[in-house]
Amino acid sequence: MKKVLFASTALVMMTAGVASAEVALSGDGRMGIVYDGNDAQFSSRIRARFTMTGESDAGLSFGGTFRVDQENYSSNSFRSAARGTAGAVWISGTYGKLSMGDTVSASEAAVGDLYDIGYTEGSFAGDYEEISYLTGDGENLNQGPNILYEYSYNNFKFYASASDGSDNLVCGVGAVTGSDAVCNVPGDDDKSDTAWSLAAAYDAGNYNVGLGYARHGDAKEIVLGGEATFNQFSVKAVIADYKDRGWAPGYDFDKTYGISAKYAANALTVKANWRRDEVNSLIAGVDDESFDSYGIGADYDLGGGATVAGGISKSDYIDDTVADFGIKFKF
Amino acid sequence: MKKVLFASTALVMMTAGVASAEVALSGDGRMGIVYDGNDAQFSSRIRARFTMTGESDAGLSFGGTFRVDQENYSSNSFRSAARGTAGAVWISGTYGKLSMGDTVSASEAAVGDLYDIGYTEGSFAGDYEEISYLTGDGENLNQGPNILYEYSYNNFKFYASASDGSDNLVCGVGAVTGSDAVCNVPGDDDKSDTAWSLAAAYDAGNYNVGLGYARHGDAKEIVLGGEATFNQFSVKAVIADYKDRGWAPGYDFDKTYGISAKYAANALTVKANWRRDEVNSLIAGVDDESFDSYGIGADYDLGGGATVAGGISKSDYIDDTVADFGIKFKF
Amino acid sequence: MKKVLFASTALVMMTAGVASAEVALSGDGRMGIVYDGNDAQFSSRIRARFTMTGESDAGLSFGGTFRVDQENYSSNSFRSAARGTAGAVWISGTYGKLSMGDTVSASEAAVGDLYDIGYTEGSFAGDYEEISYLTGDGENLNQGPNILYEYSYNNFKFYASASDGSDNLVCGVGAVTGSDAVCNVPGDDDKSDTAWSLAAAYDAGNYNVGLGYARHGDAKEIVLGGEATFNQFSVKAVIADYKDRGWAPGYDFDKTYGISAKYAANALTVKANWRRDEVNSLIAGVDDESFDSYGIGADYDLGGGATVAGGISKSDYIDDTVADFGIKFKF
Repeated sequence: MKKVLFASTALVMMTAGVASAEVALSGDGRMGIVYDGNDAQFSSRIRARFTMTGESDAGLSFGGTFRVDQENYSSNSFRSAARGTAGAVWISGTYGKLSMGDTVSASEAAVGDLYDIGYTEGSFAGDYEEISYLTGDGENLNQGPNILYEYSYNNFKFYASASDGSDNLVCGVGAVTGSDAVCNVPGDDDKSDTAWSLAAAYDAGNYNVGLGYARHGDAKEIVLGGEATFNQFSVKAVIADYKDRGWAPGYDFDKTYGISAKYAANALTVKANWRRDEVNSLIAGVDDESFDSYGIGADYDLGGGATVAGGISKSDYIDDTVADFGIKFKF
Repeated sequence: MKKVLFASTALVMMTAGVASAEVALSGDGRMGIVYDGNDAQFSSRIRARFTMTGESDAGLSFGGTFRVDQENYSSNSFRSAARGTAGAVWISGTYGKLSMGDTVSASEAAVGDLYDIGYTEGSFAGDYEEISYLTGDGENLNQGPNILYEYSYNNFKFYASASDGSDNLVCGVGAVTGSDAVCNVPGDDDKSDTAWSLAAAYDAGNYNVGLGYARHGDAKEIVLGGEATFNQFSVKAVIADYKDRGWAPGYDFDKTYGISAKYAANALTVKANWRRDEVNSLIAGVDDESFDSYGIGADYDLGGGATVAGGISKSDYIDDTVADFGIKFKF
Repeated sequence: MKKVLFASTALVMMTAGVASAEVALSGDGRMGIVYDGNDAQFSSRIRARFTMTGESDAGLSFGGTFRVDQENYSSNSFRSAARGTAGAVWISGTYGKLSMGDTVSASEAAVGDLYDIGYTEGSFAGDYEEISYLTGDGENLNQGPNILYEYSYNNFKFYASASDGSDNLVCGVGAVTGSDAVCNVPGDDDKSDTAWSLAAAYDAGNYNVGLGYARHGDAKEIVLGGEATFNQFSVKAVIADYKDRGWAPGYDFDKTYGISAKYAANALTVKANWRRDEVNSLIAGVDDESFDSYGIGADYDLGGGATVAGGISKSDYIDDTVADFGIKFKF
């Protein structure tokens, strides 16, 4: 008695003039092996995503999305799409698009990350291809939902993002963001520093650049990234400069820079990436430090949503050579 | 590779004579701002609901429903649709409808709550529009699922509800309500007092009244409610009288009464509500107390499932004026 | 604004040559009463399952499945389909089928369990119809995903299964099996003993037999099972012999054997089962012990996915007669 839902071919059977709100269901999975430098381990997952969309009578588009595993509210996880700390909702029109929830920052929206490698898309090596953005994307969850505004003008895109500067996890009226909020004892909530970001990007088709700025209290971030494509070859580089951003005790996180490249030939894509983090010592007589991470990998598209992929990485954080290999699915 | 599921127009393409069991998927979301008396905070959410229905060969209807965020079983939350403490299942026929799970009580089914206001449908102000019913609707979760029976006779509806009088959270055979019950050590479970309720309602079209009675151990509840509609204007009032019902130490929860009204003009609905709680002091020389909560709000229907809404409330519980404003979605 | 998904009639409306990846949604529910030897308790549940399938251009089948309630990652539950410890993914072709995730062991795949009885399908009596397999099916979760390989040759089926022999719950690179792994501090993970199993089964249509062997460190398991069908009557028996397998302190789990039978007449199926566990004392002067569990039940199919069922059981573990009765749904 299975309910079969179709399908990529978009069988749009709606009558003209009828409300178009709908819920789409998609999924992804993977199975393979991760070698962590000491031994090989099985690694698999299966996930489902809801994507909801609608349109008002006046043509305002709206929607929301989350995965089942993002609805995970408990004493040790405040990630919950039903409480604004996972997934996101949005409205969109001629004035741009406004999203709220677990959104990325303006910086991240404009610049993004390096190319990921491997079957686990980088997580086998600690996801070093993901630039460490100061705000958004899970960084300011204690302040509840973040907002991200996006506006396009010709080849330019402009971005602005912010948290609300108020701590949601303490008890107080502000804590009531869902029907099952942990705290609903009346009282004041704590103030936090608003985490915000401004960014812009320019897309010329065969190349694009992005520049972002973010602040959270005294901590600052400037991020610059660029990507270029020459036939089957693409390259992307990112540089991030931080100020007053914490690290381990006695150190400040100063800089990240990295570059990644990929070459696509029919079903095969070969990818490589490299990143360096520089941390400054705050203690006289203690040296600054830097950490390198790099890797190479390949994807082979089997068609129908299946891709075989593998990668090998070395990272000063792990101090080991790690690798993964497996098959990824899109449903 | 998105799976698009349609749609409000109910494209029922089933062949006659084929088993009709089906799973429907719907959702809701919202994004906006809550002012908690001290500062404004972002507030958003996105949720998905499964609604399953079927019919036996002899015409017995059956079904069940739950949201993804209601499946939330952990050491600090026993709410789980897979264990009967969230969502509900039902069977329905000429004899009436019987539901089991996280059902409302007979009182609540017959009388219900005051009109909610605001973008967050009352939660920005502590959901004071929701009458505090003695049983059901999450009140007796330690006893596992509740039942609710509903029967219609002409304009009358009759309701009966109950918990099972046995504590589910202790270890014991009774604890095994799902395949992952926390406790499955053989042994006896603890007895609790059955929480039960009886109620009736009469619906004359332009007005309706409901009366409910509930008990849980020594605690008692009598609730009376009525609603009337005059053209575009509706009013609803509820009075609840409690006996031996706990409150803060040294007090008993004695009474709740409230009234709410709404006026609908095309896409706009304006709403207001007021509620008073009276608590009796159990200590000589200490005064009884009462708590007032009231607010006003408006909804504007944008069509297609989107509604702009906002509200402002004042409550003795919060001791602050709070407000919310945002846009709500139905998918 | 409900999205209606259909349906059992399989409205396959895909265009030839289009990628066939899809997500199917199904569900199950139940409502009834469990008598635990002391008192009767309400028991209900509602669950939803995702089943995803696809096919590569070269004809490799792949897929995955999990229920919403299996995505339950928290400080006290590591069961998560998004992290490989619940649900499963698979690939399948002429070479056989390979599954990864919370799979059953080879032994369990070849031999299986006794017939379950009752409305709760055995859980009212502690699921004694489920043979206690040494590996797989939730036994080795601390090692993350398990694998199961299945291959058919004429009437024979061959099975092999294994865990990866590496503890996933400690911090270390190996712990990174999902994007939200609890530990991602670089470091070594702990070694465990690989839990593995080999098994074969023969199916002659009206009867089938299965034989399995499993090891986890010093612990061993040999399991033999057989099932035969004579017209409306079926019988299934299982015997499991363990070596060096723990039990309560001072005892070893030595043997399980059991038999079950069912008789189907139109919509009615009557079932009975019996199982004995033998545990050996490791202390001189203390006797060995054995535990009997048995029960009888019946299912009545109402059509359309609804079944009325009930059972009664007695078990030395519970030391009480327990019973259940209710209605089960498939959507």
